[in-house]
Amino acid sequence: MNGHRQLTIGLFGFGVVGEGLYKVLEQTPSLHATIKKVCIKNPGKKRNAPAALFTTNKSELLDDPEINVIVEVINESEPAFEIVSTALKNGKAVVSASKKMIAEHLTEILDLQKKYDQPFLCESAACASIPVIRNLEEYYDNDLLHSIRAIVNGSTNYILTKMFEDKIDFKQALIQAQQLGFAEADPSLDIEGWDALNKWTFLLTHAYGIVGKPEDIVFNGIQNIKLSDAAVAHEKNYEIKLVAQAKKLNNGKVAAFVLPQFVTHDDPLAFVKNEFNGVVIESSFADKQFFYGKGAGSFPTASAVLSDISALRYGYRYEYKKLYYHTPPVLTNDFFVRVYLSFDDWKRIPREKFEWIEEWHAGERKYLTGVIHFNHLKNDSWWKENNVSLILTPDTIIEDIEIRKLKKKSLELAGIMD
Amino acid sequence: MNGHRQLTIGLFGFGVVGEGLYKVLEQTPSLHATIKKVCIKNPGKKRNAPAALFTTNKSELLDDPEINVIVEVINESEPAFEIVSTALKNGKAVVSASKKMIAEHLTEILDLQKKYDQPFLCESAACASIPVIRNLEEYYDNDLLHSIRAIVNGSTNYILTKMFEDKIDFKQALIQAQQLGFAEADPSLDIEGWDALNKWTFLLTHAYGIVGKPEDIVFNGIQNIKLSDAAVAHEKNYEIKLVAQAKKLNNGKVAAFVLPQFVTHDDPLAFVKNEFNGVVIESSFADKQFFYGKGAGSFPTASAVLSDISALRYGYRYEYKKLYYHTPPVLTNDFFVRVYLSFDDWKRIPREKFEWIEEWHAGERKYLTGVIHFNHLKNDSWWKENNVSLILTPDTIIEDIEIRKLKKKSLELAGIMD
Repeated sequence: MNGHRQLTIGLFGFGVVGEGLYKVLEQTPSLHATIKKVCIKNPGKKRNAPAALFTTNKSELLDDPEINVIVEVINESEPAFEIVSTALKNGKAVVSASKKMIAEHLTEILDLQKKYDQPFLCESAACASIPVIRNLEEYYDNDLLHSIRAIVNGSTNYILTKMFEDKIDFKQALIQAQQLGFAEADPSLDIEGWDALNKWTFLLTHAYGIVGKPEDIVFNGIQNIKLSDAAVAHEKNYEIKLVAQAKKLNNGKVAAFVLPQFVTHDDPLAFVKNEFNGVVIESSFADKQFFYGKGAGSFPTASAVLSDISALRYGYRYEYKKLYYHTPPVLTNDFFVRVYLSFDDWKRIPREKFEWIEEWHAGERKYLTGVIHFNHLKNDSWWKENNVSLILTPDTIIEDIEIRKLKKKSLELAGIMD
Repeated sequence: MNGHRQLTIGLFGFGVVGEGLYKVLEQTPSLHATIKKVCIKNPGKKRNAPAALFTTNKSELLDDPEINVIVEVINESEPAFEIVSTALKNGKAVVSASKKMIAEHLTEILDLQKKYDQPFLCESAACASIPVIRNLEEYYDNDLLHSIRAIVNGSTNYILTKMFEDKIDFKQALIQAQQLGFAEADPSLDIEGWDALNKWTFLLTHAYGIVGKPEDIVFNGIQNIKLSDAAVAHEKNYEIKLVAQAKKLNNGKVAAFVLPQFVTHDDPLAFVKNEFNGVVIESSFADKQFFYGKGAGSFPTASAVLSDISALRYGYRYEYKKLYYHTPPVLTNDFFVRVYLSFDDWKRIPREKFEWIEEWHAGERKYLTGVIHFNHLKNDSWWKENNVSLILTPDTIIEDIEIRKLKKKSLELAGIMD
């Protein structure tokens, strides 16, 4: 119909997402997309689909000339990369849900798309049901995107919401999240921030054309956040969120990091509770946009995969305009951040590294707020260790050109208060 | 590049949106889209573009075989329809921002697209910077969409926000909105609900495949809302919003209307303040999604037009899957709604038409809450007249199958309370 092509799909993975996808495609003949073969690891497992559909031999999919789309929803990073790269080499379009793989093989995946002129779509790997990649690709041009701030991990957001609303501590909240299926048995990938970091790595490519590695980006999870931090947030009328963010500075460079942050109640991210995700994009033209939805789970993920499949029918591909048609900005650590730090022992805090300290509180759990150069976070790790909890303040970034003025003002204030 | 076609645009209208669009295209050669000619009404007006670009003769655009895209951002409905239909007949793709025209000529525009096999995109006519049409087209299939609720008019939302937050009355808030450019000199199109109604008419097509006329849909604006209504909302911990909504009932039919509604604080629509718009979509797969952004203004509108132009490059068109590949559901008025009514005079309220009344308050401004069949709103107008203010309650829709049970319960409660 209308020159759209018929899609014949080879599917890798038949877990909850794969099976969900299979069911939806069965029920929706109007999509003109059928799954010809499914490659699985464990042939013994009982499946809710005809046995003839399955194989354990991946070349039955990758070498079948009839199959023009490979959909990959498996969990392991290296096998996923092998599948994706072979598929692109064999002239097949690819839809992938593997965040970690995409983050770790970003350059290679970009090169393969170019070399073999095939689309590679991965909306479900970012925020599942929220079409963030599509919007970054189509709505925002490089020069126009001021900032993007997002909650991209549902597990950590669920835990923070529970700590905040029910005043339970991190461990209790984590157990609750695990019982409800919002956190994995091994939750470290989520709670230490790795999952958000992976997503942020490739979202920076769609947002700004920046092709970086996860290790370029300063990050932390929520493992050190204390109930006392939530109490301080309450007092200051803030909430705590794990925020992945990027901002274009006045010098044209981009500041990007994934760190816990205090957010004010009128920040759209404050609206994002429990396992939901949210993305706030600010640009010259569209102004402020906010997208909110489920960022994980079998159906939201399957719906994003489906939307990518549907887009392939009319030849959609990411153009990476900001990367290929512009000179992309570079990442920088040359700016300052205002941070809140809570800790048990003053000795663990290198106070001499702060530009100035604005507030400190004694007590069993001590805390301070102060301004520090971002390089100190990039190069050191004291702020992640020894039970130290670092949380960014709402307007955290202070650029070079503002720092002198602010420092002078702050020292004057300190003088008055002495 | 990649088989994408070069777009040569004929632009109708050079107001703030048209001029904004011209500037962006000038600055973005990577879009491979250039404006060849601009048709304007008033040749005497000074324009910020080369004189050779302009004409007052529309056939210079519509009959130019080199021009393959017509972008139409003029204000008048009938001339806009003439432009759009001629363009489609002449084999040109069309991008339109004319909400009223689209609502009034919906059937004809659908027929023209089919007959001449040309795309007609109109994202900017819905919620400007919020990609709601694109999402309805691509993410949601007919059987999956439970409901869609939206704030689609920025003027009325600005006025309601001010009434609510600053406790000023409707007229003062309207004047403020006009001073800030959020409301027109003649605001009736916005405040009486016509603008929201127009948008809702064609959004129902993308959401459910329903092709209706504006007059099929029960609607009202905010012109009767009193400061005392806002005070009641405050008391009940609600806010008041003008909500366009549609819900698939258990019988497969769709209830759709545009009316003021009390919303709870955890409803994403409560987050939408001032001139912003917001859309909440609930579906089986993606679950609940919320989109938020600027729904009007020159740049947000231009950015949506730009996004449509960009989509034309890879041959994107609306497929209207719910209309053409399914049997679309029909609109129904056969359900009940729970409403709040405030009024000056009991005599104006036909109490016998209510199934039951749950609450009433005497005083200078009286109010009640009660349950009424929706047909009474469809067929009568007392609820819009005589200074009566009708506001839906948060869970307003009561289906046929629930009404008996609820009525019995309500009468028992009344008995107890006697």
